[in-house]
Amino acid sequence: MSTRIGIMGYGNLGRGVECAIKQNDDMELAAVFTRRDPSTVSVLTDTAAVCHVDDVMAWKDKIDVMILCGGSATDLPEQTKLYAKDFNVIDSFDTHARIPEHFGNVDAVAKANSHVAIISVGWDPGMFSLNRLYGNAILPEGCDYTFWGKGVSQGHSDAIRRIDGVKNAKQYTIPIDAALEAVRSGSNPEFTTRQKHTRECFVVLEEGADAAKVEEEIKTMPNYFADYDTTVHFISEDELLANHSGIPHGGFVLRSGVTGWNKEHNHLIEYSLKLDSNPEFTSSVLIAYARAAHRLQKEGQSGCKTVFDIAPAYLSAKSGEELRATML
Amino acid sequence: MSTRIGIMGYGNLGRGVECAIKQNDDMELAAVFTRRDPSTVSVLTDTAAVCHVDDVMAWKDKIDVMILCGGSATDLPEQTKLYAKDFNVIDSFDTHARIPEHFGNVDAVAKANSHVAIISVGWDPGMFSLNRLYGNAILPEGCDYTFWGKGVSQGHSDAIRRIDGVKNAKQYTIPIDAALEAVRSGSNPEFTTRQKHTRECFVVLEEGADAAKVEEEIKTMPNYFADYDTTVHFISEDELLANHSGIPHGGFVLRSGVTGWNKEHNHLIEYSLKLDSNPEFTSSVLIAYARAAHRLQKEGQSGCKTVFDIAPAYLSAKSGEELRATML
Repeated sequence: MSTRIGIMGYGNLGRGVECAIKQNDDMELAAVFTRRDPSTVSVLTDTAAVCHVDDVMAWKDKIDVMILCGGSATDLPEQTKLYAKDFNVIDSFDTHARIPEHFGNVDAVAKANSHVAIISVGWDPGMFSLNRLYGNAILPEGCDYTFWGKGVSQGHSDAIRRIDGVKNAKQYTIPIDAALEAVRSGSNPEFTTRQKHTRECFVVLEEGADAAKVEEEIKTMPNYFADYDTTVHFISEDELLANHSGIPHGGFVLRSGVTGWNKEHNHLIEYSLKLDSNPEFTSSVLIAYARAAHRLQKEGQSGCKTVFDIAPAYLSAKSGEELRATML
Repeated sequence: MSTRIGIMGYGNLGRGVECAIKQNDDMELAAVFTRRDPSTVSVLTDTAAVCHVDDVMAWKDKIDVMILCGGSATDLPEQTKLYAKDFNVIDSFDTHARIPEHFGNVDAVAKANSHVAIISVGWDPGMFSLNRLYGNAILPEGCDYTFWGKGVSQGHSDAIRRIDGVKNAKQYTIPIDAALEAVRSGSNPEFTTRQKHTRECFVVLEEGADAAKVEEEIKTMPNYFADYDTTVHFISEDELLANHSGIPHGGFVLRSGVTGWNKEHNHLIEYSLKLDSNPEFTSSVLIAYARAAHRLQKEGQSGCKTVFDIAPAYLSAKSGEELRATML
């Protein structure tokens, strides 16, 4: 029997989940839930219902896993614990500093209602976290490095768009090759923020805006840009739409460590992602963990979990026998 | 309380396990078991016993996990199922085609005696297998690629040493850069054996041996060399010892796949290892899974497992709280 999926929130991530379901024969999209008027929302899957979020309780027994596709700032801290009462849930909560608190909130509700919740699923947190854990467990004496990009940072693009005189903008985070090569050489370098990444901005100005002033405001923006070497390109809106409307991303997780009685041998573990579509890749990870959540609940498990708590075999539609015969 | 480890077999892998234990505060080497006269075997760990393999049963209640460090050809098919009767066991069984059979044999004994066995632990099978599984689960429509090296192949080195006139030899397996780049480009290439790897051999001849004949015999050896572009260098024994006595290895696992309603977006997941010491890295993986085996048995689990069945958190000495706060 298929795993019946509900999608809560139909933005880039929700649409990505819909696409990922299409690629997995054991998954089925039951319904999409939206805060908009459902009659104004059209989905790609003929067989799926589109419902207002207020009607979600009617789906309590018709959805095996609800995938929460809202944002981490305000949606997920409320939604995940709310829906864990009546559904198995998955989210991609990515505010790293608030994960312990979010975990505690969701765990209490999920346990009390015998549901499985898996939070912070995606690639960072998610696949990158897994690679940090595996790397540290295997090479306990070593150094961790995470680089992001080349890719679009939504938060940084938004920050530019809030500047007076900016009509539209896209920001790319770019890892610095020399830093990556230094890590790969085994020298265990320590980096300043500026030494790891550069930031490249493509900006469309409002009519009559002062380019020099906007550029200065971007480059000196605290937290977002001041600690980085930042390049600003002013382009037309047509060029922005033609060349910068994708949402690529990716990055690198490296663990550099030593083994041997006298620590005489060096080792490097490197994991990297090159993603044409950040939300679609994140969605693909969400669907794999939705499969795990459904299985775990059928086994009688409950509570909040993260990617650290899920045995890899639960992610695959294949049986243990098939996996051992084909992938081990 | 520490996890008390037994090492069965004290070759390169057994010594690697001893080194890995030293790097993990929650691990302790209880005893090394050898088929040799124990008085002729000296270990690095002052507090560890050295015992004959015939005395292993005296350690039944003094060892939490027995790590089997023998070979896959003849040792492990017998040892793992034998010792799973009285111990939790870990092995690095790497004959891919025989894993299902080995799993079945070990599972029956481990279950009947309430022990946990984890087989085929290391990097291939092991970490590479995990990356094949995660990659396939996340990107169900795509292609898998595994490349090995640059590294020393023990089996190929042995094959050369069996040739008449060869005194000593070392063989390196080398992935072909152009093939790796073709995969990274997203073109989903199909390769012949010759297009993925080359083989480089460093050979020391016996006095008076015919170099041309040896080279011909290497290059035409079925399965081992005939399907590859192979280079043979004749060097002195001194040069072999000076420049080729290490056991480096490594490789790459790549998953190239598509997402999107019309499969319009490409993604690349790449995992790679660069290892100065193949046996020491393998040993480090074994010790992380020994931690998992001990924990799982304390939780009441039993039977044979592989890396696919072990939730990542079990590998780390850190608590769930610590892992979520520091690595997620």
